[in-house]
Amino acid sequence: MDIIIMTNYPQHPAAIADSSFTQIRQELQALGQTFPHPNAVIIERIIHSTADFEFATITKSSPAAIEAGILALKAGCSIITDVQMIKVGISAKWTAKYNNSLHCFVADEEAKKAALARGLTRSAIGMRIAAEKNLLNGSIVAIGNAPTALFELIQLIHEGILPALVIGVPVGFVNAVESKEALTHIGNVPWITCLGRKGGSTVAVAIIHALLRLAVGVSNESETTF
Amino acid sequence: MDIIIMTNYPQHPAAIADSSFTQIRQELQALGQTFPHPNAVIIERIIHSTADFEFATITKSSPAAIEAGILALKAGCSIITDVQMIKVGISAKWTAKYNNSLHCFVADEEAKKAALARGLTRSAIGMRIAAEKNLLNGSIVAIGNAPTALFELIQLIHEGILPALVIGVPVGFVNAVESKEALTHIGNVPWITCLGRKGGSTVAVAIIHALLRLAVGVSNESETTF
Repeated sequence: MDIIIMTNYPQHPAAIADSSFTQIRQELQALGQTFPHPNAVIIERIIHSTADFEFATITKSSPAAIEAGILALKAGCSIITDVQMIKVGISAKWTAKYNNSLHCFVADEEAKKAALARGLTRSAIGMRIAAEKNLLNGSIVAIGNAPTALFELIQLIHEGILPALVIGVPVGFVNAVESKEALTHIGNVPWITCLGRKGGSTVAVAIIHALLRLAVGVSNESETTF
Repeated sequence: MDIIIMTNYPQHPAAIADSSFTQIRQELQALGQTFPHPNAVIIERIIHSTADFEFATITKSSPAAIEAGILALKAGCSIITDVQMIKVGISAKWTAKYNNSLHCFVADEEAKKAALARGLTRSAIGMRIAAEKNLLNGSIVAIGNAPTALFELIQLIHEGILPALVIGVPVGFVNAVESKEALTHIGNVPWITCLGRKGGSTVAVAIIHALLRLAVGVSNESETTF
């Protein structure tokens, strides 16, 4: 029975991706939601990862933020994440293209001790550790879980740290809305965010995968280009 | 400025969780969506991870599936995942309680070669590798990404494999709906799923974290109980 079901649907990874993005574009069009390049690539890939079309209306970026992310990736920038899920979710095949290294300090013994001592989240302390290791300047910082990490990063930016791009998409009921609203006011650093409560590690990974595809110059469907 | 914003909101991890779950319960109640224990624990934690109240209506389970998951965890079962994001998303603090080991074969060289040779997804091959290693019987299998992995698992169950519980929450536009529908018809193995296109790694992690809390006997808020 299951074999019959399986043969009715695309099984090859590239065919699955092709069919998914065709559906996403058709439904966005039916909803009257169309976006220029390169914004469309970001939004389509978030919807591909969440099956949630609300991201078409809540995903926002500062002027030329996507271009800033592409340039940073091509220059081999580091990618700093608030949680391990984002770090492992990013395809090594794609980061290998420009030697982008990935870093996350949430699970460090140092972060655990400092978080306990200061009553803060480990993700917030993780941002400060990244700054102390001089990893944030020129990097892409992707925050998909902890609003406290995004607030800490905004504080670090006020202290003079200059990431190339902040992907700030924490999810939740406490501080998420407020931290993302604060991100839209930082002024001196490009940002991509999803307004409101929604976000998450899979959204952060989707945005980075979209930026890597834009950097390499392939479309969303081309899962197996190299 | 940011320091002022920060002090207006809970900063301690346990206080953030408390406040989040209070809001989730109040909003579920306002929506007329109330659930008995232990189902409420699962649904509240999924909403905590996604900020998406649609999960209250699409999350379904077979009779006593949650109890089956709790029993398996307490017996020290293995947890098999389709993608690394779920594996790293599950808190080591919680799995240490009953020595639940985590396994994911998607990135194995073996899976890469077999997937290329057979034109299937690596996640699907990963399920078959887990079966060959005799890891699936009595385990909890969590699929949050690849519908093809869920179809492969259903096929393995038809071949005689008996997991203790299947958490089948793949996301997407091709096969996701159909694979989850097929899961609800397997009959001989307990399951938890989210009907429709939505799901994802964060949803799978949320369900396992809820089951671990139920096994240990603490509520959703008790982030720092042990």
